[in-house]
Amino acid sequence: MKDESAHRRHVLDLDDFTVDEFEEVFVQAGAMAEVLSRPIKQVPTLRGVTVVNAFYESSTRTRISFEQAAKALSANVVNFTASTSAVVKGESLVDTVRTLEALGCDIVVMRHAMSGAPYVVARHFHGPVLNAGDGQHAHPTQGLLDIYTMRKHLGSIAGLKVVILGDILHSRVVRSNLWGLTKLGAEVVLCGPPTLIGPAGHWEAIFPQVRSSYSLEEALPGANVVMMLRLQKERQEGGLLPTLREYTRFFGMTMDRLRLADPQALVMHPGPMNEGVEIDPEVASCAQSVIEEQVTNGVAIRMALLYMLAGHRGAA
Amino acid sequence: MKDESAHRRHVLDLDDFTVDEFEEVFVQAGAMAEVLSRPIKQVPTLRGVTVVNAFYESSTRTRISFEQAAKALSANVVNFTASTSAVVKGESLVDTVRTLEALGCDIVVMRHAMSGAPYVVARHFHGPVLNAGDGQHAHPTQGLLDIYTMRKHLGSIAGLKVVILGDILHSRVVRSNLWGLTKLGAEVVLCGPPTLIGPAGHWEAIFPQVRSSYSLEEALPGANVVMMLRLQKERQEGGLLPTLREYTRFFGMTMDRLRLADPQALVMHPGPMNEGVEIDPEVASCAQSVIEEQVTNGVAIRMALLYMLAGHRGAA
Amino acid sequence: MKDESAHRRHVLDLDDFTVDEFEEVFVQAGAMAEVLSRPIKQVPTLRGVTVVNAFYESSTRTRISFEQAAKALSANVVNFTASTSAVVKGESLVDTVRTLEALGCDIVVMRHAMSGAPYVVARHFHGPVLNAGDGQHAHPTQGLLDIYTMRKHLGSIAGLKVVILGDILHSRVVRSNLWGLTKLGAEVVLCGPPTLIGPAGHWEAIFPQVRSSYSLEEALPGANVVMMLRLQKERQEGGLLPTLREYTRFFGMTMDRLRLADPQALVMHPGPMNEGVEIDPEVASCAQSVIEEQVTNGVAIRMALLYMLAGHRGAA
Repeated sequence: MKDESAHRRHVLDLDDFTVDEFEEVFVQAGAMAEVLSRPIKQVPTLRGVTVVNAFYESSTRTRISFEQAAKALSANVVNFTASTSAVVKGESLVDTVRTLEALGCDIVVMRHAMSGAPYVVARHFHGPVLNAGDGQHAHPTQGLLDIYTMRKHLGSIAGLKVVILGDILHSRVVRSNLWGLTKLGAEVVLCGPPTLIGPAGHWEAIFPQVRSSYSLEEALPGANVVMMLRLQKERQEGGLLPTLREYTRFFGMTMDRLRLADPQALVMHPGPMNEGVEIDPEVASCAQSVIEEQVTNGVAIRMALLYMLAGHRGAA
Repeated sequence: MKDESAHRRHVLDLDDFTVDEFEEVFVQAGAMAEVLSRPIKQVPTLRGVTVVNAFYESSTRTRISFEQAAKALSANVVNFTASTSAVVKGESLVDTVRTLEALGCDIVVMRHAMSGAPYVVARHFHGPVLNAGDGQHAHPTQGLLDIYTMRKHLGSIAGLKVVILGDILHSRVVRSNLWGLTKLGAEVVLCGPPTLIGPAGHWEAIFPQVRSSYSLEEALPGANVVMMLRLQKERQEGGLLPTLREYTRFFGMTMDRLRLADPQALVMHPGPMNEGVEIDPEVASCAQSVIEEQVTNGVAIRMALLYMLAGHRGAA
Repeated sequence: MKDESAHRRHVLDLDDFTVDEFEEVFVQAGAMAEVLSRPIKQVPTLRGVTVVNAFYESSTRTRISFEQAAKALSANVVNFTASTSAVVKGESLVDTVRTLEALGCDIVVMRHAMSGAPYVVARHFHGPVLNAGDGQHAHPTQGLLDIYTMRKHLGSIAGLKVVILGDILHSRVVRSNLWGLTKLGAEVVLCGPPTLIGPAGHWEAIFPQVRSSYSLEEALPGANVVMMLRLQKERQEGGLLPTLREYTRFFGMTMDRLRLADPQALVMHPGPMNEGVEIDPEVASCAQSVIEEQVTNGVAIRMALLYMLAGHRGAA
C-alpha cells in the first residue's frame, strides 16, 4: 500500500485509485480535520512550497477550498484566472505550465472547461497536478470528499446503496464518484429523466454495479445516500428539459420523497444548490443533510492530497 | 463598557454604537497605529484566522485597507470579487455565506451594491461580519476612521462643527458619519444643492443635531471640519445637476472658500477625489488637509475591529 | 560602488545603470538563486514589508514572478489589476499611488500600457518603484534577467555578439536590453523586416555599438546569443507584415538557421512564444535553449532588486 501511493504523482481522476489508496487518503484527511479543529488552524508542513490555483473557469468554493487547504499547511498560494492571465495573449497551456514550473511553482491545481486539460498539464509539469474539475469529465477531489463524508457517517462504503439524482449526463461529479463508489463496493442508482441520463446501458457498460432509473419512486427505497446534482438552467434552453418546473415536479427532492429512502439516509449535494429546483429548502437543511459538512470535509481532503503529493516531489 | 463590546458580533453600521464603544475602538486603533509604525509592521495576533474579502463591488482602497489590516495581524486573507465568483452561476448570497463558513472562513468583510446585503450575511454567518460599504446605506469603517482622525487632531468630538459638502443624498459615508458624530455630540451641517441633499427636513427628522444648508458661504463659518464628498459623474447624467462645472462654481472647495471656516479646520475627503470638481488640488494638498492620513488611519481602525471582533469568535 | 547603489531608489529602466551596479545586481541574484535551491525556499528578510503588484495590463509570468520573489523574501503581496481596481471610477494614477502609500504599501511594482507611467508613480511615491513593463518603452527586470542569463553561461558580456530578431520597433524588451548590453560592451545586431525595425539609422543614432540587418543569413554568423521576440498577430492586422507565414519564411528560427550562429550560441526568448511563427518548436527545446532558465532567473533577479531597494527605504 505504502509503495502504491508512493508512486502517485498526480490526482487527475479516481479511475486509477486502489482500495488501499482511498483508505490512505481518508485516514490522512482525518488527521487534517483534527488540525482544522485546533484554535490555530495552521501547521508549517508546506512552508516555502508554492501552490498555483490555475482556474480557467470561475469558481468560489473549489478555489477557496484549495486556498484554505494550502494555507493551513503554510504553503504560498498563487491564484490566477483566465481573465487576468496570459491566456488573453493566446499562450498555449503547455507554455503556461512550463513557465509556472520555471517560476518555481511546486504544485498545480487546475480547473478547466476542456475535458482532459489537466492531463496535458501533467505530461509537461514535473511536479504534482491536481484536477479541480475539467469539463464534463472528472472532479476527483469532489468525489473523494463525498465518499469520505459517507464513510465518516456510515462506516463502510461496501454494500451501501447510493442514489444520485439529476443531470447525470453532464456531471463530472458523478463520473468521479462512480469510480470511487464502485471500487469500494457500493451499489449506485443513477436517477433522472432519460434526456439527462443518456442512452440505455450507457453507464452499465462501464460500471457493472451501476443501474439507471427514470423513476424516483422506484430508485429511492433502501437508499443509504441520496445525492442531488445541480440542475443547470442551460439544460432547459438546450432542449433537454421541457421546464425546470416539470423537472421539480418529477425529480425535485422533498421531505415526503426523502421518506422513501432509508430513515438514516444522508442528504448530499456538491453545491451550489438551486434550492426549490432539484432540492426543497427544507430537505437541504434537514437533520439528515450533510451538505455543509461536505464543504468542510473538502478542505481536509485537499490538505491530505497536497500533503501526500508534496512528499513525492523529491522523487519526481 | 467591557461587557457592552463583548456582546458586539458584527460591525454593520454605527447606529448601535455606544459612546464607550466608540472610545474603545479609538483606543484600540491607537495601539494598532503604534504597531504600524514599527520597522516590522506585523504581529502574530490572528495567525490561523481567515478573513474573507467578499467584494461584490470593485474597490482598490477599501479592499487593500482590509487586506493590509488583516495581514498586519498575521491573518490569512482570501479575496473574491463578483466577477471571479460563483455569483456568475446565480448562487444566492445565503448559500455563498454558508459555504464560506463551511470552508473555515472566520471573518467576512463584505462590500455589496445592495443596501442591507451585509445584514443578510450576518444572519446566516456564525462569525463576525464587517460591512465595507453597502449600496447607499452605510460604510461604518469609513465613519470610524473619519471620526478617529478628527478626534486625533481636535481632541474631542463634542461641540465640534462639522460641515459635509456634496452629494449627501446618495452617500453611505455620510450616513455612517452622522450616527457617530451626533452620538458623540458634534454639530453637523450638510451642504449642497437641494437636489443632492433631499427633501427639506429629511435629515433633521432623524438627527436633531443636524441641519441642511444650500449655501456654502452660510455653512462654513466656524467649521472645525470641512469634509468634501466625491461627486459622481452619474449624478449629472441622472439630471440631478445641470453640469459638473455649475456644481464646482457654487460648491467646489477653494482656498478662498476654505478661509471662511475656522483657520485650523481640517480638510477631509473619503476618496477617491475628483480634483477640480468638488475640491481644488490646492485644497487637497494644503497644510490643513488630512486626506492621506484618513487612509492611513483606516488600516489602524480596521485592525482594531478585526482584533476586537475576532476575540468574540469563541462565544458566537 | 556601494555608494552608487545606495542612492538608487527605483528601477525604471536600465539607462542609468553603471557597470558596477549591474555587477552588484548579478552577484546579489546569484545569492538569491541559492536561496531558491534550498528545500525551504524562503527567507525572512522582508517580513512585514508590503509589495504591491499594480498591473494595469494583464500578465501571468511577470506578475507571478514578482509574487514569487516577494514571497520568497517573506514580504506580503497585494495584487491589483485594472479591472478590479478604482481605475473603473476614473481615479488618477497619482491619487492611486498616494493612496497605496497611505495604506502602508512599501514597494510598488507597476505594469502599465502607457509608456512612462512608472515614472509618474515614482515622482509621487516615497518608496521604491519597479517598472514591470510600460508600453513600448522599457522592461528593465526582463533586460536584467536576460543579461544575467548570458553572463552565467558565457562569463562576460564584453565582446559578445548578440542578435535580436523580430519586432524590434515595438519591443520594450529590446530597449532595456540595449541599454544594458551596450553599457557592458556587447555588440548587438537587430534583425527583422524593415517595417519592424524602423527607419534606417534609428537605433544606431542612440546606440553606436548597435547595427540593424534585414537579413537573418547576414546577421547570424558568429552570434553568441540569438534572441527571438514574440511576433504579435496585431502587427499583421496593422499592415506592417504581409502575413505571419511570410515572416516565418524569412525570419522564423529553425535548427538549420541556428547553425549559422556560433555552435554554442544561446537561444533566448522573453516569452510567451508563438511557436511555429518566430521560433520552431525544435529550436525552443534544443540543448542551446535557455528559455525556461530565463524565467527561473527572473525570480532571482527580482528578489535581488526587491532586497536592494528595500534596504534603501529608511533613507528615502
